[in-house]
Amino acid sequence: MMVPPAVELGIGIQVLAETVGSSASLAATVVGDYRDIETVLSFAESVDVVTFDHEHVPQPVLRALVDAGAAVHPGPDALLYAQDKLLMRERLSALGLPVPDWASVATVDELDAFLADHGGRGVVKTPRGGYDGKGVRVVSSGAEVDDWFVGGEPLLVEELVEFQRELSQVLARRPSGEIALWPVVESIQRDGVCAEVIAPAPRAAGRVSDVAADVAVAIAENLGVTGVLAVELFETTDERVLVNELAMRPHNSGHWTIDGSTTSQFEQHLRAVLDLPLGATGCRDPWSVMVNVFGGLAPDRLPLALADQPAVKVHGYGKEPRPGRKAGHVTAVGEDLDDVVFRARAAAAFFED
Amino acid sequence: MMVPPAVELGIGIQVLAETVGSSASLAATVVGDYRDIETVLSFAESVDVVTFDHEHVPQPVLRALVDAGAAVHPGPDALLYAQDKLLMRERLSALGLPVPDWASVATVDELDAFLADHGGRGVVKTPRGGYDGKGVRVVSSGAEVDDWFVGGEPLLVEELVEFQRELSQVLARRPSGEIALWPVVESIQRDGVCAEVIAPAPRAAGRVSDVAADVAVAIAENLGVTGVLAVELFETTDERVLVNELAMRPHNSGHWTIDGSTTSQFEQHLRAVLDLPLGATGCRDPWSVMVNVFGGLAPDRLPLALADQPAVKVHGYGKEPRPGRKAGHVTAVGEDLDDVVFRARAAAAFFED
Repeated sequence: MMVPPAVELGIGIQVLAETVGSSASLAATVVGDYRDIETVLSFAESVDVVTFDHEHVPQPVLRALVDAGAAVHPGPDALLYAQDKLLMRERLSALGLPVPDWASVATVDELDAFLADHGGRGVVKTPRGGYDGKGVRVVSSGAEVDDWFVGGEPLLVEELVEFQRELSQVLARRPSGEIALWPVVESIQRDGVCAEVIAPAPRAAGRVSDVAADVAVAIAENLGVTGVLAVELFETTDERVLVNELAMRPHNSGHWTIDGSTTSQFEQHLRAVLDLPLGATGCRDPWSVMVNVFGGLAPDRLPLALADQPAVKVHGYGKEPRPGRKAGHVTAVGEDLDDVVFRARAAAAFFED
Repeated sequence: MMVPPAVELGIGIQVLAETVGSSASLAATVVGDYRDIETVLSFAESVDVVTFDHEHVPQPVLRALVDAGAAVHPGPDALLYAQDKLLMRERLSALGLPVPDWASVATVDELDAFLADHGGRGVVKTPRGGYDGKGVRVVSSGAEVDDWFVGGEPLLVEELVEFQRELSQVLARRPSGEIALWPVVESIQRDGVCAEVIAPAPRAAGRVSDVAADVAVAIAENLGVTGVLAVELFETTDERVLVNELAMRPHNSGHWTIDGSTTSQFEQHLRAVLDLPLGATGCRDPWSVMVNVFGGLAPDRLPLALADQPAVKVHGYGKEPRPGRKAGHVTAVGEDLDDVVFRARAAAAFFED
């Protein structure tokens, strides 16, 4: 999804894709393992700047790139905090940023002690490797995650936040410091996975959007983030705004920008990592609603969706269909939120089994 | 420029590119000569539908494709009228559509006779192969094109139309008949080449846009056009609307649709040639202005343009720089036409030598 804006801006782009059949493989220049230092170092020789569309490149690979003189954005010192949730919580707490109560727990007993202090329930997360609900369990007892206490690695436990909704603040930051923020959006999760995004977040103008923006800018600047940063937030029932997760790449909660903003997050990420001036981030319409499509975009459904919703934009990712997999998304824009939500959901529904 | 929407819609796309270094070569699956029947037939075996981004594929190649059972859109019977200006004039006249006075002239004497009947001046065109002002001469005497009277092929001569401006009506038509029109636009030519497009055409609401739409629909239906059709029009000083040229492909006068309409002409062309339901063609903003960039998009100019005009979209074509070549375009959108024109021109000016 970074390739079209790269071509438009005259930016040469080389893609190291993990496997044939991945969406990146549509644009792949090289197929290889991003965990293999030699593969990545060799690939990096062909480019001026290295960036990522996920956070899973291991720190030793990132450090080897930097040591070899490659420009890496975001850099390993920043990406660390998107890779390790415990380090992220420690750092954000040290910065005084609003986060849920949390602890690092190395044993079932330590976990039980935290739960006892927080109403008997909590959210346990493996510090590394989880996403889309994986590596996350809501527990009432430490015994429910005793299978995760292996190798002496601590787990992250957090209070079960009573939130009225989830928000996401996406921005981009250049190495030279310029930051551009899109408006804060509301993201609706189902089973721990983003299902819908409404941009801008309804009823967020004023304090909520100011706090979201301030927190995200503080994270970007203090952690030295370059490229796109997505800060997932809870808006609590008592009207606090707390940081949930960080992503340092174009993010699902920013997909609406392709159709809904003057500058898409994919174009902006490229501009940011190349230290080019950032694009305007305003909304092109009063409302944009993105709905994820899971499983696949069956070709026989496409004509039905297009005929029913001629103004909705369909974005397939070219992935092999698989149950539950994010296969694409649809975006509707317009002036009336109810109508925009209806049209986006109607288009997406054609692809549901 | 058709590749990104193809990927988004899950449409597999194969590109036969003429040469390395052409914009199509960025997406090339096969590099080969589109004039070679064997090359094109072999390429066509890999796809369900064959389409084009120019009109220069020779009729024998098109006919061979059809004979081999390939679905070709637009088909040879339609494309003929975008390839041969004399046949186009004959056909449109037979349909009673408004065209400038014209004649087919086989000799200097015949041409001089036409000029004498039309105020002593006229526009002479080679029926085939011209574009962007090539193959077109304004003459006061047949002797000025005697070098073109070779091989006994007739030339097209047309009255020198007194026009107040040029318009373009772009639409798409599916094989099953559905047609979707974008609003008629104003195109501003310099030295016979499109320089700017304003969408929608100012002061065209009502009669002018109705005539433009009616004429374009009549052409699409009577000629059996499939895919995108651009009808270039003159609005004369006496307020007639006359057909100038036809193009049966995404056209420069439709580039504004990428940023300015719900459905870009590139996505629509794919939808049309695949007989998929067409997308909405409304304007996303009151005004869109596209300005062509000639020569090249020098990488050192890009940061200046982006910094000065953060809301203008830059579209490079990945072509090798060459003086006078269309290297890309920029598009600005907004509510105030003067402001939109200013911003688009300002961005484009950074790339001028």
